Amino acid sequence: MNSLTIAAVQTSPVFGEVRANVDAALALVPPGCDLAVLPELFATGYQFRSAAEALSLAETPGDPDAYSLRRLAACARDTGTTLAAGLCERRDGTVYNSAVLVGPDGTVGLYRKVHLFWDEKTIFAPGDLGFPVFPACGTTVGLMVCFDWAFPEAARSLALGGAQVIAHPSNLLLPWCPEAMKTRCLENRVAAATANRVGTEERTGRALTFNGLSQVVSPLGEVLQRLEGTGTGVAVGKIDLAQTDKLFTPRNDLFLDRRPDQYRL
Amino acid sequence: MNSLTIAAVQTSPVFGEVRANVDAALALVPPGCDLAVLPELFATGYQFRSAAEALSLAETPGDPDAYSLRRLAACARDTGTTLAAGLCERRDGTVYNSAVLVGPDGTVGLYRKVHLFWDEKTIFAPGDLGFPVFPACGTTVGLMVCFDWAFPEAARSLALGGAQVIAHPSNLLLPWCPEAMKTRCLENRVAAATANRVGTEERTGRALTFNGLSQVVSPLGEVLQRLEGTGTGVAVGKIDLAQTDKLFTPRNDLFLDRRPDQYRL
Repeated sequence: MNSLTIAAVQTSPVFGEVRANVDAALALVPPGCDLAVLPELFATGYQFRSAAEALSLAETPGDPDAYSLRRLAACARDTGTTLAAGLCERRDGTVYNSAVLVGPDGTVGLYRKVHLFWDEKTIFAPGDLGFPVFPACGTTVGLMVCFDWAFPEAARSLALGGAQVIAHPSNLLLPWCPEAMKTRCLENRVAAATANRVGTEERTGRALTFNGLSQVVSPLGEVLQRLEGTGTGVAVGKIDLAQTDKLFTPRNDLFLDRRPDQYRL
Repeated sequence: MNSLTIAAVQTSPVFGEVRANVDAALALVPPGCDLAVLPELFATGYQFRSAAEALSLAETPGDPDAYSLRRLAACARDTGTTLAAGLCERRDGTVYNSAVLVGPDGTVGLYRKVHLFWDEKTIFAPGDLGFPVFPACGTTVGLMVCFDWAFPEAARSLALGGAQVIAHPSNLLLPWCPEAMKTRCLENRVAAATANRVGTEERTGRALTFNGLSQVVSPLGEVLQRLEGTGTGVAVGKIDLAQTDKLFTPRNDLFLDRRPDQYRL
């Protein structure tokens, strides 16, 4: 069996405490995983007061001084585990809500969140890299971030691009995502690891409580493990990559049976 | 509250017993509904041995001798309830797995199943009408049939076309549809009534047992009623059409926030 062990790491970052947040997150990465997914904005926390504040905490891939990127790279190299994580990204004075994929060999894949949620629209520029996929850990990995779950086009774009596994860093506030991801996996025959955070932030007068439920879902839409409760932790699942075959019945291929000429999209 | 009462009628047709199947189905339509949905191929049964056999049982909209269409029209006229039903449709020697929407005023909307399931590919021509929507019962109704559930593009196409309610005649064999329809409704903010059949057919050496679970789901993805067990019956739900608004948060519109330029579809 060509299988892959995937972890969704659930953390509780404190806003702005980058070093402590990175320490705590990497300490939770379990040994022996092929891929570990960390939450959205895992190093900085979520509730920026302004784009300027976000810029001040942002990092740029390729910058040797980028603290959390350097730590992710070192962890990937030392453990052999590919890491996916949400990153506050700076590029030429613009700040994105991004996700990176960091391999043990130093490669870095980058995605910028396409569907910004609520007040994120006043902080971040919308993603402009489409839905790229990356060869990693013996498979093909796609990245999407949090609210992208609500748009079937996100996971679909990744799967049509060849993703067998979706790494899904999240900071979820609303209840629907964990169940919806079962449908995302089933309809695309991809595995997904949603890494959410827990804890509460109140920096702009509105308290946000993140709801955990981090999980790993198989390409058949089965929840392999889902965290309950409000603490930190790790959900782990072993994925059979053969299940990413698109044959749904002996005569139905979920991708070849698509009929774009009949759609209104 | 601008609301709509919708019924999903779960029947147990006997193959080829058109009059008895129509009698039994219409007898289950509850009084006082705005819209009642009957299963896929509700009048004929499912497991045709050949396209020729399907043609021999098929009907053509507009043909005054079309038996089940005439009965649907009479029922709609007499009760004031709009009816949606799966129909074995003949057009110029071609047979489609179709659905019709029949209003009390005699209007007929037509959809031809786009995503054919398993052996249906040897019986029916694939649908060629796209995903049309129809003004009916004070709202806009879209039709999809059974396996269309597995393709997010189907419900998406209907909703983008303006459907507030999806009528979903089905003959389901696999277990995933009822839960997936919650995601379909939530991601599109549409209501859906999935009318499935029960019972077993064995006409080609392979016994097919249909799994019921007919349901009505709100635009928030809530199951308003789902039938359990293996009998016939009716699931009814009252839909608040205000919930079909696409505003997901004060700053997120599920349709306006789509970013087709970033998708790979």
